[in-house]
Amino acid sequence: MSNLEANRWFTEISDRDGSAFSLRVNRKLDEIQSPFQNVEMYETTDFGNLMIIDGCTMVSTRENFFYHEMMSHPALFSHPAPKNVVIIGGGDCGTLREVLKHPGVETVTQIDIDEVVTQMALKYFPELCASNDDPRATVMFDDGIKYMHDAAPESVDVVIVDGTDPVGPGEGLFNHAFYTSCLKALRPGGILVQQSESPLMHMTLLKEMRQAMLDVGFVDLQTLPFPQPIYPSGLWSATLARKGEPFNGFREQDAEQAGFDTEYYNTGIHKGALATPGFMRRAFESKD
Amino acid sequence: MSNLEANRWFTEISDRDGSAFSLRVNRKLDEIQSPFQNVEMYETTDFGNLMIIDGCTMVSTRENFFYHEMMSHPALFSHPAPKNVVIIGGGDCGTLREVLKHPGVETVTQIDIDEVVTQMALKYFPELCASNDDPRATVMFDDGIKYMHDAAPESVDVVIVDGTDPVGPGEGLFNHAFYTSCLKALRPGGILVQQSESPLMHMTLLKEMRQAMLDVGFVDLQTLPFPQPIYPSGLWSATLARKGEPFNGFREQDAEQAGFDTEYYNTGIHKGALATPGFMRRAFESKD
Repeated sequence: MSNLEANRWFTEISDRDGSAFSLRVNRKLDEIQSPFQNVEMYETTDFGNLMIIDGCTMVSTRENFFYHEMMSHPALFSHPAPKNVVIIGGGDCGTLREVLKHPGVETVTQIDIDEVVTQMALKYFPELCASNDDPRATVMFDDGIKYMHDAAPESVDVVIVDGTDPVGPGEGLFNHAFYTSCLKALRPGGILVQQSESPLMHMTLLKEMRQAMLDVGFVDLQTLPFPQPIYPSGLWSATLARKGEPFNGFREQDAEQAGFDTEYYNTGIHKGALATPGFMRRAFESKD
Repeated sequence: MSNLEANRWFTEISDRDGSAFSLRVNRKLDEIQSPFQNVEMYETTDFGNLMIIDGCTMVSTRENFFYHEMMSHPALFSHPAPKNVVIIGGGDCGTLREVLKHPGVETVTQIDIDEVVTQMALKYFPELCASNDDPRATVMFDDGIKYMHDAAPESVDVVIVDGTDPVGPGEGLFNHAFYTSCLKALRPGGILVQQSESPLMHMTLLKEMRQAMLDVGFVDLQTLPFPQPIYPSGLWSATLARKGEPFNGFREQDAEQAGFDTEYYNTGIHKGALATPGFMRRAFESKD
């Protein structure tokens, strides 16, 4: 039933989902084994360039906009006036670029543990790195868990956790200790955003994550689904957690009048993502 | 790079997209070569049962709700009072089931060319066929193109074209002659719905389809994206075309108070789907 020629396709098998996704490739562009992970780059036939980390598809030229926009704009427009933003992970710099589109943002500090990811992005996704030299941006390579642990209390408005899946170096980004650090570092009304896997395939993990956020003291959650063509099921999510007060809509007029282009995000998409489908709502409500 | 064991995975290679999607299977349940196409059924490890037609994934237990709900509810709630509905294709009966959830609908006639599809659905997706015996339903096996050509003028409120891709038996469902038949059969204010492929991967085809609908005289179009985990890119669309007058919102209050459950569709999802993302809007507006 399967006849993908090994040298013409990159295939990621997702054992936990019983599914696999393949992209046809012209050639391998690069491969670097960093101290943390194996980073490969391919040129695909239809999706532009493709970054693979430890065998998992991470980013492609063609479809990364869904993810980067949904990891940034809903949170930034839900906060009344976000000035100081921290991105944990995010080494491809695509989320950084989106955050910097917001003129009210004064500082963005990105902390990815692996400099190799950003080196690869600079070379193969230069468009994602277009804002790295913005004077408001600080791009660091360090341990994001430690960074958040040591961050000054109430010094940040939005923390975006743009990490890999909860295995390998990304694992420590999905637990109570890390969320406690984030809560402490956020100002009242501040928002934590985390990529929260597939609502269709990874509901157990998603529910654990949501529960952990509430356990440490976040008072309100939103889980926003969005398309993610190269990840398992093609449907992914971002979970937003708010400190101190519940979410209270979003700055819709500012979003309508945002003076920047987006490929996916708009106010209607934002509202649609907030309209939790029945299959998600029932899973959130169930005790299983 | 690829090491899917041939007997444990079903793989659909989408040559036109440079992508492939695989589901892990426990076993093949059935296979029938009909006069029209080859229909296979598999039991997967994580997606329930899976129907394959001519080598292409069609429907699985786990995720068909996205498609069936988005092919039916947006159109039915956009029409002020849909009474007579025709489904062309739709042999798995999932769209029929959704349409029959609307109490105001008086008749639904489903015309699929291939009885084998429905036989397989009755056996392996009985939940999708739960409403086949509704007295309002007529399930026919015949040529849907001829059916629409011969349909009485102004006798139908909504035509749902729930066909396969524009190859094989589904090909005639994507052209001017067929759309002209649909336009004629619809009452003023009537709505044609067609599955319109992936907005991310098949924009050329989608634009041709939209242009053909306008060419034959439909006056307004809506293309609604939705998740479709087992189709290429995981993002699919339904295009709605209206006869005689532009779309004018939808019956939001009726949708809010609908006395039936859905897994995906709700009023917020509907509005979100109407908020065309920039990448689609720009493609629709471009001359290419």
